[in-house]
Amino acid sequence: MNALSPLGMVSELPSSNQMQSDAERTDTNTGTEVQKDYFVEKDGVKFAGMHLLVDLWGADNLRDPDLIDHALREAAEAAGATILHGHFHHFSPNGGVSGVLVLAESHISIHTWPERDFASIDIFMCGCCDPYDSLPALKAAFQPKTVNLNEQRRGLIA
Amino acid sequence: MNALSPLGMVSELPSSNQMQSDAERTDTNTGTEVQKDYFVEKDGVKFAGMHLLVDLWGADNLRDPDLIDHALREAAEAAGATILHGHFHHFSPNGGVSGVLVLAESHISIHTWPERDFASIDIFMCGCCDPYDSLPALKAAFQPKTVNLNEQRRGLIA
Repeated sequence: MNALSPLGMVSELPSSNQMQSDAERTDTNTGTEVQKDYFVEKDGVKFAGMHLLVDLWGADNLRDPDLIDHALREAAEAAGATILHGHFHHFSPNGGVSGVLVLAESHISIHTWPERDFASIDIFMCGCCDPYDSLPALKAAFQPKTVNLNEQRRGLIA
Repeated sequence: MNALSPLGMVSELPSSNQMQSDAERTDTNTGTEVQKDYFVEKDGVKFAGMHLLVDLWGADNLRDPDLIDHALREAAEAAGATILHGHFHHFSPNGGVSGVLVLAESHISIHTWPERDFASIDIFMCGCCDPYDSLPALKAAFQPKTVNLNEQRRGLIA
């Protein structure tokens, strides 16, 4: 953490050294822009991306913004995602944390209620990243007794 | 927008002038910290917060990070939420935008696919804020032909 905001402790990490290329949008032969389709196709259906809503109960380490920041970065990287930006807010010295990573493939967010050992996470990934690959890092960091998982396909084309 | 990142245009707005008080966590009579219950109760059930997944089809203004930033702020404020942080990433001069507002009450995120006139938004609000109050500002900004709405109660206690 590198700053104190008037609203609480804030961990603000700039874009990492992972790079995302926009070159794929340009046809190298003609130099013209290619209208790439960023939707994915799976099981015969087309959609924008997979959105996992993950509720953790009986979880640990919910008051530590540094640990939470690190856990979400590990989770993103485990899925092969590209981290563009991170922001983590600590509501009070012993309170909950709200944080988000903006990804080239969408986002991961977390909100913690340490007084209930509860955290709600959402992992939204489009492209070739699979948000399920993020789960082991989150389970390792927070050691939940129960995980409630809800999968949503965003932008589903019937 | 006030910066160009190597990955695209970035709109980075610091915490607004809205203030959130942690004072409610302290008993003013005794000066001791009160273990407040941040879960909400509605329709006889208790849960952490309401999470709306909002898919917009046939939408406009999906390539403009300034407009999108402004729209999400209006949406947050319409629900009475407190904005702690905002970050909006423009993938290329004519590409999609990924952005998020971190709120004292959780978050609003958006990801746009302008090549399909599609945007996927999620609005997660705990406490006394109602994420449905954010919808008119979003519809006004993006003028979608179709809105697909999915309501999830996060941290539901059966």
